[in-house]
This record gives sequence, C-alpha cells and structure tokens, in this order.
Amino acid sequence: MNQIQLAKGTRDIAPSDKLLKNQVVSTLQKIFELYGFMPLETPILERYETLAAKFAAGEASDALKEIFRLNDQGDRDLGLRFDLTVPLARYVAMNPTLKMPFKRYAVGEVFRDGPIKLGRYREFWQMDIDTVGTGSMLADAEIIAMTAAAFQKFNLNIKIKVNNRKVLNGILEQAGIQEKEQAIIAIDKLDKIGVEGVTTELKERGYSKQQIESVFSFISAKTTLSQLQKKITTAEGKEGLQELEEVFSYLKSMKISQAIFDVSLARGLAYYTGTVFEAYLPKGAVASSLAGGGRYDNLIGNYLGGGRIIPAVGISFGIEPIMDTLKALGQQEQKSTAKVLVIPINTIPESLALLQELRTAGIPTDIAIGKKGVSKNLEYASSLGIPYVIILGEQEVKKKKILLRDMKSGMETLLSLKTVIQRLAD
Amino acid sequence: MNQIQLAKGTRDIAPSDKLLKNQVVSTLQKIFELYGFMPLETPILERYETLAAKFAAGEASDALKEIFRLNDQGDRDLGLRFDLTVPLARYVAMNPTLKMPFKRYAVGEVFRDGPIKLGRYREFWQMDIDTVGTGSMLADAEIIAMTAAAFQKFNLNIKIKVNNRKVLNGILEQAGIQEKEQAIIAIDKLDKIGVEGVTTELKERGYSKQQIESVFSFISAKTTLSQLQKKITTAEGKEGLQELEEVFSYLKSMKISQAIFDVSLARGLAYYTGTVFEAYLPKGAVASSLAGGGRYDNLIGNYLGGGRIIPAVGISFGIEPIMDTLKALGQQEQKSTAKVLVIPINTIPESLALLQELRTAGIPTDIAIGKKGVSKNLEYASSLGIPYVIILGEQEVKKKKILLRDMKSGMETLLSLKTVIQRLAD
Repeated sequence: MNQIQLAKGTRDIAPSDKLLKNQVVSTLQKIFELYGFMPLETPILERYETLAAKFAAGEASDALKEIFRLNDQGDRDLGLRFDLTVPLARYVAMNPTLKMPFKRYAVGEVFRDGPIKLGRYREFWQMDIDTVGTGSMLADAEIIAMTAAAFQKFNLNIKIKVNNRKVLNGILEQAGIQEKEQAIIAIDKLDKIGVEGVTTELKERGYSKQQIESVFSFISAKTTLSQLQKKITTAEGKEGLQELEEVFSYLKSMKISQAIFDVSLARGLAYYTGTVFEAYLPKGAVASSLAGGGRYDNLIGNYLGGGRIIPAVGISFGIEPIMDTLKALGQQEQKSTAKVLVIPINTIPESLALLQELRTAGIPTDIAIGKKGVSKNLEYASSLGIPYVIILGEQEVKKKKILLRDMKSGMETLLSLKTVIQRLAD
Repeated sequence: MNQIQLAKGTRDIAPSDKLLKNQVVSTLQKIFELYGFMPLETPILERYETLAAKFAAGEASDALKEIFRLNDQGDRDLGLRFDLTVPLARYVAMNPTLKMPFKRYAVGEVFRDGPIKLGRYREFWQMDIDTVGTGSMLADAEIIAMTAAAFQKFNLNIKIKVNNRKVLNGILEQAGIQEKEQAIIAIDKLDKIGVEGVTTELKERGYSKQQIESVFSFISAKTTLSQLQKKITTAEGKEGLQELEEVFSYLKSMKISQAIFDVSLARGLAYYTGTVFEAYLPKGAVASSLAGGGRYDNLIGNYLGGGRIIPAVGISFGIEPIMDTLKALGQQEQKSTAKVLVIPINTIPESLALLQELRTAGIPTDIAIGKKGVSKNLEYASSLGIPYVIILGEQEVKKKKILLRDMKSGMETLLSLKTVIQRLAD
C-alpha cells in the first residue's frame, strides 16, 4: 500500500481521547440507568426504505441525499442509519407488545454523507434518551432532571433552558405570522445574533415591522412565565403555558434548580411539538449546547402510519462537546490506563508475581516488555502518561522492598508492597 | 410503511439482553485496563483499498467478496470494516511515532456480507485485544493471564489451551508433510471428530498411512511438553517448544493455573505464526470457544509492505458465546435497570421527592407515568422485571412511611425511608 489514509470525513479516536470518551459514555449510562432507562441496540445497517420513510413523513429532504446507500449480495437496497430516532420508531413498530412508556437509551455511530466542515464528520456518535408512549409532562420533567444529574456527575455547572413550542406558536399566531417554521428558526438565534440580528432575519423573510414588534413584545431573555400568562390569548399558547407550569412544578418537587424558562429557545428542528430544552454552560463555554431535545408527539406515529399516535419526548447528549468542555476545564482524569509500569532488572519471575499482586489489588499495572533498559522504559512510561514506575532489581527482591518512582516529581522511594498498594490505590 | 423489517442478517438487541451485553463488555474493559491496555476507536467506514489490502497480503480471498462496498458523494470507493485487525494495522501505519509495544483493545461492530446461517449475522460485534511491536513471550503470557482473570470475573471456570504453530509445523515436517495448512485444519478438529475423523480427513487430502501414523505419534490429547522435547528434532519445532516453555514459566510466576498445553490446538486461521490459545468451558459448555487468539508476526508487516516486520499477539473475546453461557448458567444479574417503581396515588409532589432521594442514594428508580391505576402499574413493573414497587398514598405520606412491595413474593411492608434505602441498596 502506498497511500494509507482514512476514508474522507472519518477519524480515529486515539487511546487517551478514547479513554475520556469511554468515561463520558459510561458516566452518562449510569445516570440513565439510575433513572430507569433501558439500553437498546439496533443495527447500523437498515433497509433504505426504513430510513427514507422519515422524509416521506415530512422532514426536509436535503438529509435524504446524505444517506450512505449500499446493496447486499442479494441486491437488497440498504443504508447506514443517520440517527437513532428512526431505528427507535422501527423498533416500536416491530414490537407491538412493548410496554408503554418505553424508556430507552441508545449510543452509537451514525452516518451522514454530507459536506465536511471543521468538526463535522461523516461518521459520528449519538447518544439518545427517549420516553415513548406517554404525553405526561412527568416524562419531560424526568428527562430534564436526569440531564441535571448527569452534568452534576461531571462537575459541570450547567443551566437548562426550557420552553414549549406551543407557546412560540401561540405568540406567532398572535403576531399574525402564518409560516411559523421560518420565524422559529430566526427566533432560535436570539442568543447568538441578538434582537437586531433576529429583526433583520425576520425582515428578510418578509415579515412586517408591526409583526416583528409584536413578536418582540413577547420575547426577550427576561420574559417570565407569569408575564406571558397575562398576554397569551390563543388556545395553543395557553396549552403550552400550562404544560410548562406542570413541568416546572415537577422540577420543583424534584429539587432541580438548573432549569430556567427561556421563551426564545426553539431548537431548530421542525418536529418538536411541545416542551423543548437545552443544556449549556453559562460561563466560559467551549461549546454552546451540551445536550438538547424536546417532545415530538407526531414523529413516531407519522412514521408508522395508520393513524397511530405515539407521543414521545427525548434528549440527545453531545459526546464531543462534553469531551471538549472537560478537556478545556482540565477535567480529563487519566491519559493512561496503567497507573504503574514495572521494570524488571533480571527479576522477571519476581516482577510477574508483583504485577499480579498489584492487579489483584485493583491497580492497573503494566510491565516493561522487551530488553530496553531502564532509561528507555522510563521514556516509554512518560510518553504514555503512566504516573508511576517500579524498578525491581535483585537488591530490592532480597530486601523485600519496592523502589517506586513518581514520574512527575522524579522522586524515588523504597517502600513495602503494602505501602505501594495503599499509595497507588488512592 | 407497509412492511417494517430489519435488513437481512441484522437484529435488534432487546433491552434486557443489551443490559447483559453492556455488563459483559464493561467487565472485560475493566480487566483489559487493569492489564494496561488502552482503548482505540477506529471508524466503521474505511477506504475499500485499505480493507482489500489484507487479502493481497495473502489471506483467502473468499472473504473479499463479503466486504460491504459503497461510495460517498465524491464517488470514493469505501467499505465497512470486516474485522478490527485491519484498522489496527492501518492505525499503526499512519502513526509511525507510536510507542511500542502498543497495547490496545477495541470493541465494536464489524460487517460481513456472507451467507446467513443460524446464529450468524451480517453485522456483529468483535472485541479484540492486541500487543503490537514485540516478539517477547511476556506479551503472550500477559494476554493469557488477562484472559484467565477476565473469566474469573464472570465466575466461569474455564481452561485455556495453549500451543505453538511452530511445534505443529515441526511435527508435520518430521512426518514429511509439505502442505501444512490443510493438515493443520484437519488436526484442529481432533476435539470434535476424534482420531478417526482426523485420520479420514488426512487420507482424503492424500496423505499416506505412514505420514498419518507419524503425525499421531506426536499428537494426542495427553501429549506433554516434555514428551515432545524428546521427539522433536527440527529447528522450527524446537523453537516452538522453547517459546512454549517460556510462556508457561511466565504463567507459573503469575500463578495462572488455567492454562494447559494442548498439541492439537491449531486455531483454524492461517496467519498465526507462534503461540495459539483458546479459552473454553470444560463442562456443560453451551459454546465451545469463548475466546481465542495467538501470535501473528507477519500480518501487520505484510499489510504495511516495505519489508517492515511488526510482531503482534492478540486475542478476540466472543461476546455472544459469553452472554449465552452466562444466561445458561443463570448468571444474568438483572433484567431491568430500575430496582423499584414508585406508584403515586394523588401524591405526585411527594413521590417525586422520594424518587430523587432514592436516586441520590444510588438506587435506580422509576416512577409510574400516566394515570393507569395500581394494578396496571404492578403489571408494568412485573413485565419489565422491576423487583420492587413503592405505592405511595396520602396515608403513607402522613405517617412518613413507605409501602414497599416485593414483586417476587407479593409481600408488602410499611417501612421508613432509611430502611427502604438500606434494603434496596443491597
């Protein structure tokens, strides 16, 4: 092979990053399970028809072109999944006896054959948590509470903006705006481009000065729920307000203080029907949104057809933004799995016995392999980020002592096995 | 959609099975990390050229046809990875400054567009652990020791057969057999088809009675290393014996008693060059082989070309066989993530507060969502395998007591929150 390359738009996750990624994923999994969600695995390969059905059901068809399409040897038309929601809908459809609510989480690769920009890949991971089969606001509150608990585990002081699409629809209706989707996409940018920017966008989309002023009479970063209660008059808007009140009352009972009402939050995607939420780090944020989601009561039912109504609410965690944030805050716990490297000097049997004692004590331990000499092995430990080294010579074996070297300070101490285990177990 | 189906040869892993699968994977990951192996993630999409290069390097080209092949929008020729070894070789090639030995593990989906038999899928998981860049038998011994430790974690009383391909080659050479691969494939079946079966196969492949007798003078289930030492005369055979002795001496120092010498073990695949090993459950086995691997000193170097020699040794764990074995032995720990379902009876705020207290105490807890009534919710808990239910009525709230129902016995007890937490935390 002359040119060894990755496929365009893909990448390797090097060991130290993968260690952090595993830590992020498993921390989140534990929280999902603490909240009673069950894991589900669906295949990466799906029938093309299954994947394309989402778009027939109304979503923008640009994404249809981004499906990686392929055939099997039986010439069947297949594709690689582009999200974890379509496979969830298919699973629900194929398992009619599933007990509702069905609370599931899923983690894994999804694929989109789209344009490649900085930080955008054609193969990436998603992590979705959804409660399917109930319209109760308890489900929405529980997902918000779970999100708060998850970021607490990472020591990230996040806030969760909460809004309801029915409220936004109500506001737009009162402002006399018919084509709500375009307006919602503009309003969603309030945070980034400010009132002026949103005004410009709304003007460009042909809304009148009066309409725009009407929208901004409802929407600002400081708008409270009680202010809106006095102003919103449409049925849909009122329903949205009531749902929000219910969610916030549940969150209060659950002692979740991270959730805040934000009337400008829309969450770009078109398929949300009620509650929407987004977790973000208010200060020093590397990434604006760390997790986001909402209620989508029509998507699964539309997908299945036959007039079935299957309400659902879910959230997606951004594994990459969370990793980047933890790295930026210096919270990447370990760069190496091994906590100590044992270097034998003519003491292979004794070193192997020691190795196993340390491992049995639960201390991740590595042994120098090959006859490279001490300095080369110290270099090896250092480049892998292994924090301690044990140099075991015949002298130490005789004395029943262990020479422990702290790689950071370079300090070497002669210790008993018991002390070494205590020190490394910290 | 009329017919909602999975792609042929794929399947869903339902929540209770996925829970077990996660448990198997994370138990193994912890052991790999205890042994100082680092995780590596490589993409599922690779350039077709990268995948096909393995076959140019000499492996049977039947498998080449089983690559799922596809194009991206730039008309690039891509494929889905069919194993985790080729991506490892590519990663080593693309990272020339990688410190050796490179100890890595990898877990994930691989794809093969092959014929579908019972229990064979076109998308399945592999779990590989490899030490790259050293020919030292310490690496082989460490992987065998790690395998023993892994199955101890599962309480599976396995044995690990160990052999060396050089020994087999030496025996065949002394028996005057030139085309060793065919003979090795036949000998590998000794366990399953016995001496008679292997004899028949060797005859069919055209070996003489004398040759076959010569082979069996070396090979039986009871052959010991010291017996072979007296009989083997070829250089390659002697080298293999010496390597085996070295591996077993290291295993002795590491106090690994599960490893046993078995001269008939060959491990079908052609690319092994030295040590081969296989973990199996001697009694009441559901699956014969639970993990297997060996040394392959030529594969990565051949793959990279340019005359590079990159020795390597690795093992692959069979996630499915391990899951099946644990299930058959009744060792599937839990079928539900939630340990308790809280059913509020006009006590939503108090139930939500209780829910969070239990979750904060680390007890996976679910709440009944929707207005289904107690009996429907008991049915829900029972069908999901949730072992306990709390029915929280106004009476209990007043008394500051909790009614805990054991779903197995049906027994209900009125307890304090503290006692409930103690009982559920077990």
